[in-house]
Amino acid sequence: MSKSRYRDAGVNIDEQEKAISAIRNLVASTFTPNVITGIGSFGAMYQLPGGYENPILVSSSDGVGTKLKVAFMTGIHNTVGHCLVNHCVNDILVQGARPLYFLDYIGTGKLAAGTVEAVVSGLAEGCRENSFSLIGGEMAEMPGFYAEGEYDIAGFITGIVDKSQLLTGADIAPGDEVWGFASSGLHTNGYSLARKIVFDEMKLTVDSYVDEWGCTVGEEFLKIHRSYRPILLPALEENLVKGLAHITGGGFLDNIPRILPEPVSVEIQLKVVPVSPVFDFLVNNGKMDLEEAYRVFNMGIGMVAVIAAENRNAFLGAVTEEPVLLGRVVSGDRTVRLLR
Amino acid sequence: MSKSRYRDAGVNIDEQEKAISAIRNLVASTFTPNVITGIGSFGAMYQLPGGYENPILVSSSDGVGTKLKVAFMTGIHNTVGHCLVNHCVNDILVQGARPLYFLDYIGTGKLAAGTVEAVVSGLAEGCRENSFSLIGGEMAEMPGFYAEGEYDIAGFITGIVDKSQLLTGADIAPGDEVWGFASSGLHTNGYSLARKIVFDEMKLTVDSYVDEWGCTVGEEFLKIHRSYRPILLPALEENLVKGLAHITGGGFLDNIPRILPEPVSVEIQLKVVPVSPVFDFLVNNGKMDLEEAYRVFNMGIGMVAVIAAENRNAFLGAVTEEPVLLGRVVSGDRTVRLLR
Repeated sequence: MSKSRYRDAGVNIDEQEKAISAIRNLVASTFTPNVITGIGSFGAMYQLPGGYENPILVSSSDGVGTKLKVAFMTGIHNTVGHCLVNHCVNDILVQGARPLYFLDYIGTGKLAAGTVEAVVSGLAEGCRENSFSLIGGEMAEMPGFYAEGEYDIAGFITGIVDKSQLLTGADIAPGDEVWGFASSGLHTNGYSLARKIVFDEMKLTVDSYVDEWGCTVGEEFLKIHRSYRPILLPALEENLVKGLAHITGGGFLDNIPRILPEPVSVEIQLKVVPVSPVFDFLVNNGKMDLEEAYRVFNMGIGMVAVIAAENRNAFLGAVTEEPVLLGRVVSGDRTVRLLR
Repeated sequence: MSKSRYRDAGVNIDEQEKAISAIRNLVASTFTPNVITGIGSFGAMYQLPGGYENPILVSSSDGVGTKLKVAFMTGIHNTVGHCLVNHCVNDILVQGARPLYFLDYIGTGKLAAGTVEAVVSGLAEGCRENSFSLIGGEMAEMPGFYAEGEYDIAGFITGIVDKSQLLTGADIAPGDEVWGFASSGLHTNGYSLARKIVFDEMKLTVDSYVDEWGCTVGEEFLKIHRSYRPILLPALEENLVKGLAHITGGGFLDNIPRILPEPVSVEIQLKVVPVSPVFDFLVNNGKMDLEEAYRVFNMGIGMVAVIAAENRNAFLGAVTEEPVLLGRVVSGDRTVRLLR
């Protein structure tokens, strides 16, 4: 029996050092003055900002699902991290929270410093876009867990909001208006089905050009999950929003009810939803039920805002991008009705 | 071409609902009064505790590495989550922080509600042991990412400490004493090498009984990563500790220097390290260099505390378990010297 070395077991500490060195500046580029630590300490430290009367921390963990497979197929690894950060930012934005910091987890079979650097560059870009800090993370090299060249990533966000500014949807009432903000595409949901339709059934590749989309499959499927924070922040600061729903897995049908109080439902006029070409293509070529499509995909709307009807003008004046009036709140039992 | 349904693409929303229902009570069993949310909201909410003059949040993300393979081999899934929580608790304990809440990420190829329930029961047990809350998590079903029956887990911890109570190691000085607290075994590091030695080279199985260990390979390799919080808390509250190093991947050699200030090193007398039988077995059967062994494994010591020599009696009186005097701090360049 030969001598056992850690490298022989598939774990390469030198490559880990190389990766850490490569990402050091990327991570530091996101630091705000509240970050009081660099890479190397066991836990990452963040000085809590003052000025909150009754501070609530809002946290979320998430991944980007099988969108990663598109990164593997194209060899483009610097966008999925950006998607992950924006997804997490949206998930706490809907409760009115401002992001403070982000940590990541990257699991892989064999660590490649270049790939890690690309992934982290996406994370850092997302943090800079949303003005907060990537303060820590874990790279796990796990031989035999992931296929060659593949990895999984998870993200963890911590944000803060004063209790008086928490957005819960509790005062949503019949007559309120439901507005939708455009998604950039699939965002991070429905990729297992989309890949099945496009790659397995239609036999397209990431390099196939789709006329209706004006780009290749790879380009469309890697479009970055939008952050709605810059768009909605002014309206939130003016207290013009009663509730926000981030349209992720589960679509309109599962996500909007999460913010509805007991006696109301939402009616959405399907004819006004500006379904983007990618979803038309997937629904038609996949011969999907519309009901299922609206449960799997965002169908072109990535964020839904519920406002009091009398605030319409102030709301439209405050947001930095024009939304679509999708429908109204009615009496009901916390469901979403799709009206054809 | 047949109709496309999400389930056909390998994603089963019903099984996800079943898993959520199974873990609801487990998660709720960890809630403290500061948790102001249940499962279902986009972000999880936690009311910041008062009484801190200058609160610092301390966060860490981690996984349990290829210890998971032992869970897969044995079919025992309810301990790795406990390991993950304790690992994270230790990583912020070394900075003096008290854990507030935990979030998890579980990535899997095909979601099995029973396995998820077992994993989360381990997470919940770890949170209860350390008196804090599991407030959220993400279950990602990713067809084609993980082998049948396999998964990866990541954990994210958030803790708090007053700036005046931060443990940095900055005042560690020559003459200080270095004490070690026993590990329960491998904890969560070195499993790729340990599995290679025991399974690949020695051809043992998880059911093989090892006389020196008094248990099977599976039992030894699944022992729970200890939390040192209950042991060290009284000594920390009495300000008797100058610095703590959690001995994880990198062993003594990489972890102790993380807390050393510029002009000091640490000398450890190898003859006093109570190397536990599992490490003797791995080093001997794997024909490992001792230097490499101390970089890969914890070798029987899971937590190292540095204290002022004059505080020895107070320290030993405060901790709830007897540590071992490993060595001393000397003048140096932030290295660890292993003295034979």
